[in-house]
Amino acid sequence: MSERVTNAGAVREAVLAVDAMGGDAAPEMVLAGLDLAAERHPGARFLLFGDEGRIAPLLPAHPRAARISILRHAPEAIPGDMKPTAALRLRRASMRLAIDAVASGEVAGVVSAGNTGALMALAKIVIKTMPEIDRPALAAIGPSARGDVVMLDLGANVQCDARNLVEFAVMGDAFARAVLGLPSPSIGLLNVGSEELKGDDRLRQAAEVLRADPDINFHGFVEGHDIAAGTVDVVVTDGFTGNVALKTGEGALKLMRDLLKQVFTSSLAARLGYLLARPALDRLREWMDPRRYNGAILLGLNGVVVKSHGGTDPMGFAHAIDVAMDMVNHGFTQRILSSLARLSSQPQPSPVQ
Amino acid sequence: MSERVTNAGAVREAVLAVDAMGGDAAPEMVLAGLDLAAERHPGARFLLFGDEGRIAPLLPAHPRAARISILRHAPEAIPGDMKPTAALRLRRASMRLAIDAVASGEVAGVVSAGNTGALMALAKIVIKTMPEIDRPALAAIGPSARGDVVMLDLGANVQCDARNLVEFAVMGDAFARAVLGLPSPSIGLLNVGSEELKGDDRLRQAAEVLRADPDINFHGFVEGHDIAAGTVDVVVTDGFTGNVALKTGEGALKLMRDLLKQVFTSSLAARLGYLLARPALDRLREWMDPRRYNGAILLGLNGVVVKSHGGTDPMGFAHAIDVAMDMVNHGFTQRILSSLARLSSQPQPSPVQ
Repeated sequence: MSERVTNAGAVREAVLAVDAMGGDAAPEMVLAGLDLAAERHPGARFLLFGDEGRIAPLLPAHPRAARISILRHAPEAIPGDMKPTAALRLRRASMRLAIDAVASGEVAGVVSAGNTGALMALAKIVIKTMPEIDRPALAAIGPSARGDVVMLDLGANVQCDARNLVEFAVMGDAFARAVLGLPSPSIGLLNVGSEELKGDDRLRQAAEVLRADPDINFHGFVEGHDIAAGTVDVVVTDGFTGNVALKTGEGALKLMRDLLKQVFTSSLAARLGYLLARPALDRLREWMDPRRYNGAILLGLNGVVVKSHGGTDPMGFAHAIDVAMDMVNHGFTQRILSSLARLSSQPQPSPVQ
Repeated sequence: MSERVTNAGAVREAVLAVDAMGGDAAPEMVLAGLDLAAERHPGARFLLFGDEGRIAPLLPAHPRAARISILRHAPEAIPGDMKPTAALRLRRASMRLAIDAVASGEVAGVVSAGNTGALMALAKIVIKTMPEIDRPALAAIGPSARGDVVMLDLGANVQCDARNLVEFAVMGDAFARAVLGLPSPSIGLLNVGSEELKGDDRLRQAAEVLRADPDINFHGFVEGHDIAAGTVDVVVTDGFTGNVALKTGEGALKLMRDLLKQVFTSSLAARLGYLLARPALDRLREWMDPRRYNGAILLGLNGVVVKSHGGTDPMGFAHAIDVAMDMVNHGFTQRILSSLARLSSQPQPSPVQ
C-alpha cells in the first residue's frame, strides 16, 4: 500500500477516512466534495482511499481537497451492485481499507457514497458494535415544520424488541445533541396512536423504560403525521416501520413536487406566476433540498459511519462529511457509551400487562 | 321505535343505513350529504337513524334527502369520545340501530361519521366477520401519480400473520374491482425492498401464496415510495405499518401545503404569481381534496361498513356514501367470499426458509 502525504505532518491530525471510489460519479464527485469540506473544516485531515492512478492526476484540479487529504492507494473498488457477502472478500477495496482505518483507531470515522449493503456489513464486522449495543441502527435527518427531525431505525433491523428500541432512543438522543446541537432533544416513539395503551407490549415496555430515565426528554408516543409536523426532535421506531415511513414521506413529497411542476407549466399565466413566486419557491426548494439531508448514519458502532447517497453531488457529499465531523467533534460515541452505562445501572422494567 | 316513511313503498328498496347523529356537525351535515347523494343515486333509499325530534324539523330544508330517506327514531347517540366498551351498552343509539339493520339483513351496509372505535367494535360484534375471514381490515383510497390507490390494513390489526395479509390482499382486490372499477387490479405487498428475499418470513409466505393465485394480479413487494407513485392499485400491509404510512404521507403533504401557503403570501410578487397560477393550483387542490378520499372502509364483515371522517362536510359525506353504494352495487361481499373459497381450496404454502 503506497501512501502519499499531501500535507507534511498531517497524519497525526487525520479525522475521517473517505472512500474515494464510492458513488455514481466517483472519484471526481468525492474530490469536489472534499474541496467544499476543506472550506468548512480547514483544520481537519482526511485519509482518502482509492485508485492512486485515477485520483492523483485529478488532485491538481482540486487543490483544497489535496491540501486536507492524505491519499492511500486501494487497488480494488466495490461495485454498487455487488452482494455484501462478495464485498467482504475484497480486502483491498477502497471502502474496506477506509473501514479498516476506523477499526485500527487511525481515524474516528468513515464517509462513503458506495454500496450501502456492503458498507453496513463491513462496518458491523470490521468496526463492530459498541459493547453495550445489541444492534446498530440507521438514522437520518429530515425536514419538518419545526426544524430538522432525526429518525431511526431506517432499515438496519427489520425486527426489534423493546431493548432495541430503547437503545435506538439513546443513540438518537446522543445524535441529536451532537449533530443538531440540541441540549435536550425530545424523543418520540412511533405508534398508531398517542395514548399510553396503544401499540404492542414491546412499545409499551420501551416507553416505560424511557419515561423512567431522567436524562432522556421522552415525549411519549407519536404518530406518522408527527414526523413532518416536527412534534419531537427524534422519532424512534423499528427498521421495518422506519424504512416504510421514510420512503412513504419521500414519495408523497415527490408526488407533490411533480404535480407542482405540471401546474407551473400548464399555461402561460401559470408560467408567469411561477416566475413571480420564484424567489420564495427557490427558498422552499433549497430548504427541502435532499442534499441538505444527505447522509444516513450507522449508529452504535465503535466509530462514526456515514453513508452518502450514491447519486449525490459534491454539495451533498460535503453535507455527509459535515454530519460525520459533527459526530466526531461532539464526542458522539462517548456520549452514547455513558448513556447506556446509566441505563444498564437502572432496575429492569416490569413487563407491561 | 317509530318509523317515518317519507316515500311510500320505499322500505323494500332501502340499500344503506345512515347514522344521522355521527360527526361533528350532525345531523345537519348528514342531511346535506344525503341531498347530494340523492342526485347521484336517485333510485336508492336510505334508512336514516337519529333523533326524530331534531331531524324531522330539518327535513323540509333538505327535500332531496327527505325523498330518499326513511327516518327511524333513535333515542340515544354515541359521543365522539366514548370508549367502545361503553358504546356497546347503548342499545338504542343511532349508530347501533343502523348497524342492527345491517345484521338483520334489512340493508346491505351502513355509513357513519361517528366514533371510529365504537363503529369498529359494534360492526365486529353485531355484523360479524365473514365465515372465511380471520380479521376485518380497515381500507382507504388515496391519490397517486397514476390514479387512485387502495391501502389496507390501516390500523384494525396491529399484529398480522401471513394468512391475514393474504386475506387483506383478497379483500383489497375485490374492493378495487368494486369501487375503482378495475378489471384486474395489481396488488403489492409493502416491504423494505422489492427483492424477493427482503422482509420477514411472514411477508415471504404471503407473497408465495399470492404469487400462486392465478386470479390475483400480484405485482410482488413494493416500497413506501411506491404508494404515491401508484406502482400498484392496492397496497397490502399490516395495521401498524399501514397506519404509520398513511399518517406519514398525509403529514408530508400537509407540510408541503403549509409551506406553499407561506411561499404564496411571502411577497406581493408571490401573491400575484399565485393569482396567475391559481386555476391550475385549484385543479391540483381539488384533485388532492381529502373529501374526495373520505371514507375508511371496514372490510371482511357480513355487510358494507364505511366510516366517514367526523369533521367532514356534506360533500365528503356524500363521497363516503358513494363508496358504500359502489361496494353494494358491485357485489363486493359476494366477490370476497368466492375469492376466499378459491384460495382455501388451494394447497397450503410450504414455509419459506
